[in-house]
Amino acid sequence: MTASRTDDFLGLAGKVLAHTARSALAPKASRAVPRGDTRFVPPTPAPSKDEAEANDGWGFADSRFVVQPNGSTVLTGKRYNISNVELPALVPWVAKTLAAPLRYEDRHEPHYPPPVPDARRAPELRSALAAFLKEDQISEDPLVRLRRGHGHTGAEIWAIRYGKLERVPDLVVFPTSHEQVVALVEAAEQYQACLIPFGGGTNVTDALRLPPSEERFVIAVDMRRLCRIRWIDPVNLTACIEAGAVGRHIATELGKYKLMLGHEPDSLEFSTLGGWIATNASGMKKNRYGNIEDLVLDMQVVTAHGVVTRPQVGPRESIGANPKNFMFGSEGNYGIITSAVVKLFRMPEVQRYGSVVFPNLGSGLDFLYDLQRSGAVPASVRVVDNTQFQFGVALKPKSHGVAARVKSKFEKALVTQLKGFDPKELAVATVVFEGSAEEVAYQENTLYRIAKQHGGLRAGAKNGERGYQLTFGIAYIRDLTFTHWAIAESFETSVPWSKALSLYERVRERVRREHEARRLPGNPFFTGRITQTYTTGVCIYFYMGFYCKGVKDPVRMYTELEHAAREEILAAGGTLSHHHGVGKIRQEFLGDIYSPGSLEFMRQVKRAVDPQNVFGANNHGVSGTVQLEAGSA
Amino acid sequence: MTASRTDDFLGLAGKVLAHTARSALAPKASRAVPRGDTRFVPPTPAPSKDEAEANDGWGFADSRFVVQPNGSTVLTGKRYNISNVELPALVPWVAKTLAAPLRYEDRHEPHYPPPVPDARRAPELRSALAAFLKEDQISEDPLVRLRRGHGHTGAEIWAIRYGKLERVPDLVVFPTSHEQVVALVEAAEQYQACLIPFGGGTNVTDALRLPPSEERFVIAVDMRRLCRIRWIDPVNLTACIEAGAVGRHIATELGKYKLMLGHEPDSLEFSTLGGWIATNASGMKKNRYGNIEDLVLDMQVVTAHGVVTRPQVGPRESIGANPKNFMFGSEGNYGIITSAVVKLFRMPEVQRYGSVVFPNLGSGLDFLYDLQRSGAVPASVRVVDNTQFQFGVALKPKSHGVAARVKSKFEKALVTQLKGFDPKELAVATVVFEGSAEEVAYQENTLYRIAKQHGGLRAGAKNGERGYQLTFGIAYIRDLTFTHWAIAESFETSVPWSKALSLYERVRERVRREHEARRLPGNPFFTGRITQTYTTGVCIYFYMGFYCKGVKDPVRMYTELEHAAREEILAAGGTLSHHHGVGKIRQEFLGDIYSPGSLEFMRQVKRAVDPQNVFGANNHGVSGTVQLEAGSA
Repeated sequence: MTASRTDDFLGLAGKVLAHTARSALAPKASRAVPRGDTRFVPPTPAPSKDEAEANDGWGFADSRFVVQPNGSTVLTGKRYNISNVELPALVPWVAKTLAAPLRYEDRHEPHYPPPVPDARRAPELRSALAAFLKEDQISEDPLVRLRRGHGHTGAEIWAIRYGKLERVPDLVVFPTSHEQVVALVEAAEQYQACLIPFGGGTNVTDALRLPPSEERFVIAVDMRRLCRIRWIDPVNLTACIEAGAVGRHIATELGKYKLMLGHEPDSLEFSTLGGWIATNASGMKKNRYGNIEDLVLDMQVVTAHGVVTRPQVGPRESIGANPKNFMFGSEGNYGIITSAVVKLFRMPEVQRYGSVVFPNLGSGLDFLYDLQRSGAVPASVRVVDNTQFQFGVALKPKSHGVAARVKSKFEKALVTQLKGFDPKELAVATVVFEGSAEEVAYQENTLYRIAKQHGGLRAGAKNGERGYQLTFGIAYIRDLTFTHWAIAESFETSVPWSKALSLYERVRERVRREHEARRLPGNPFFTGRITQTYTTGVCIYFYMGFYCKGVKDPVRMYTELEHAAREEILAAGGTLSHHHGVGKIRQEFLGDIYSPGSLEFMRQVKRAVDPQNVFGANNHGVSGTVQLEAGSA
Repeated sequence: MTASRTDDFLGLAGKVLAHTARSALAPKASRAVPRGDTRFVPPTPAPSKDEAEANDGWGFADSRFVVQPNGSTVLTGKRYNISNVELPALVPWVAKTLAAPLRYEDRHEPHYPPPVPDARRAPELRSALAAFLKEDQISEDPLVRLRRGHGHTGAEIWAIRYGKLERVPDLVVFPTSHEQVVALVEAAEQYQACLIPFGGGTNVTDALRLPPSEERFVIAVDMRRLCRIRWIDPVNLTACIEAGAVGRHIATELGKYKLMLGHEPDSLEFSTLGGWIATNASGMKKNRYGNIEDLVLDMQVVTAHGVVTRPQVGPRESIGANPKNFMFGSEGNYGIITSAVVKLFRMPEVQRYGSVVFPNLGSGLDFLYDLQRSGAVPASVRVVDNTQFQFGVALKPKSHGVAARVKSKFEKALVTQLKGFDPKELAVATVVFEGSAEEVAYQENTLYRIAKQHGGLRAGAKNGERGYQLTFGIAYIRDLTFTHWAIAESFETSVPWSKALSLYERVRERVRREHEARRLPGNPFFTGRITQTYTTGVCIYFYMGFYCKGVKDPVRMYTELEHAAREEILAAGGTLSHHHGVGKIRQEFLGDIYSPGSLEFMRQVKRAVDPQNVFGANNHGVSGTVQLEAGSA
């Protein structure tokens, strides 16, 4: 039945309505939307084993990079694709890149734990807490308090390894219910205490650093025991999840029902739902599933004026100036998020990886631009610059035996093809496709066609997969560099398409200049990858570092370099942050990105909704600029 | 080059890095992202002619439905696909549906204009305004004031046609620059006046109705002259547009550069960008382009504490609790939006319509559910219920001449196929596909395959197109019904998939019951269409009405019915509003959808950011419940 023959269907249908007698119904629909109450409460999983997390650095306690006497590096444990294998090229490559004499024996051993400031005393408040918290929900342990007093900026980790923190929370509590959080806020109000919500502790914005001027008793509210999935609605694809649930557990539990959240920040393993909302987080697969503000339909927040919550929530609403909207990026300033209603997705029928080599970063960017405009954007596509490509190569395990010999058969042919590329210029795109078989096939065809137009050469699914899995493993490298007299950290921005390449180049050059001006040793380490694309621009994620043996106050030097890099980013048309947030690390730039009226709006809101400043984290300068003591890190 | 052969590309690339000499670069990329400053300022268009809008009803002054002595209806003017043709079936069908004796001669003639309340006097303020506004930017004209004192609820239009408004603004100003709005807010603060922003005046929430208790001098701030496109960035697909620009002008101006905003609310012709933000609007093509909160990257808002604005804005940011987020759905309570930075889209390579007939609304819903999950969702897809299908048939122009004879050739074949459908049950989906040729082909294939699985029969592109274009024409019908003793209006909700059909049925039954209980004449008119889909549910848009000749206070009756319908919606799992908003018409339900803490949060924010209540519209109960006088409408 062609379209043209049916174009006058409506005219016809009028006749049908007028003349046709009621006839048999058409064949039944193949599948009906289930009706009625479609929620279920999943069983609470047994506590996982082997999940101890490190207190003195990133990630799991069993995973860390160690340089061996032979110069090879090993990531201990068995969790990652590069765990428990010798990585012979890593240290030599880093040494060459930094122009620094990294050696096994030349170590800067951490002296964790640092001295921990004594806790203040608040016996009355302590008794009040005992009325609704069990003994194992309250801790004054110095190391427990220390860990809740920082996140994961380089400065913070350096401080706990080689220095100290001037001020950490006086007490840590572990609520297990929303009601306990309500009682906690009431107690804090009554006894003039300050509450700092703590999720995964993975922020890189000094958001958990206490203002040294904070004279009140400070309670860190560790949300990790408030981590149940309250309900799942597999038909309407929603769930209510408590705010302290970490990404890896959410993924595991939803996965049992072939469902997923689709939010995959690089910190996925350790960061929490509440933390994602409070930092306005972004995930690697946001093209398909959205960023956190797209995923969260509603949330429950305990504020000083009561609980912000709603009895039911719909797919999309126009219901006034919903307080929920103010919680994205709230960084602990306005209340404690206890749960959220989130969108779910069914696990994709097909997941496929891919990779493409481009002549240089510019052609990689051009490819992304056309891909974004094609409408066939895969779940994730990233382009790493040449340094990061080389970094990936340096992370190759030692190959040996049959596999090595077999591989060499293919290498000859490939070398020929790669001759078209300058190995010191080429850039690599890694891709994750997710969706139905049909959808993925359509996206793949489009992507490889566009890649070819920009000189791209397909480089296989395995390299794509490896690129993504490296994300989780390489997060541990920062701590390794510290032990060998290098200091390194990441930062990010978003920038319009037309300014992306010049921003990248300007920041690289600025870092080089600042490094030189300070007569820091060797060469700076600088690399970037384009991690997210939008119709309007991209996110660029940078790593920066330098060799710091003999450098007086390397943290201050690093901070100055990062500050300069951020200045350059803003001058080049970039934003203060794409997804890390502001916290205290970027507070001095707020006047550059907001009008005085905007800042006043934020501060007036803070005063109004938290008049007693119970939530005293004071991030993004909401109660004025915080002076972090220079000596503290 | 197969994937498997390249899977060890990284190992190989290491060799390349180590051994290959620098060689010629790969072929140049086919197209590069333009670099540098990519914005331009479009010329200000000459004022359009023939654009007079009606003051006493919907839309353009030249377009209104008129029943002719022969019983046919004509939409005057030439603007719409159903303009200037005889529609013989409309009145008979409406009469039959309402079981009411609608006749040409039985008219309820409006007596517009109603008496307009006298303006208060504020000579000092008036002088202060004259310092920065020209004489033609200030009006005390009663009809100009009247029009700024209402939107487009049925009650409001009934009031200006058959009753009166108790209170309208005392003065109307027409700023032409952001700076004038700043000066205006300062003047209002100094002289204790109240400001009510006015955009297209198309809201259906009583948002513009003045609280009768408002004792201050009230200035309506008509934003329509603040309507320039400040700049367009065709590379990064963004534009800065002043808040008073109406949808039709934005579309025309951007269209000159093959660009578009992609936001198409049913009020597109008349509503403004600022209004869309303030009501948290949704567009017909949100599947492809997003709702307003997805489209607006930044905005400039004049608040009581200064201007909320930012020097530059990025694709996506994490920069604290951005005040911008609080403006979506703000309904005029917190300041005056003067411009916004929005995303743009390139005009699609292909636009194609489609339509599908389903056995009933349930199978149409099932089709939408599977389509949403397929990932191949077209720009827009809607399903109308049987009554709305019949309504569309009733709007068919009189056919005559050759066309009519040619059509009949096809009708026989079609009648055969349609025999499988019950004409009193069938539902119709209308679809708009937009994108590249490849993308549209892919979406079409997927859609028609899924449609078939649910008993759907393709019904042609022309019917799809007609369905969409009818959207704009039928907006005028409400005013026709008034003139023939019927009262009718629309309302909407969003609801999870599993509750959508039962909600539809419950609301229909509730309306029937309430209509009967009040012994209203004839049958109620009730119809719904599913206008938007999400992974989590749908938006349903209802029309409701009844014959009201001889009914005492038909507006109160209608309001009671709508109130009952809303109660039923909430009880059935629907939301207070999908995109119309709260205003004052739904304020009494706020306690049902928000916790006391949520409402307190909103009210505290209001008091903090507007301590003098300069922006006194008092929508969504932000300063307490507004008592609209019963006699006023």
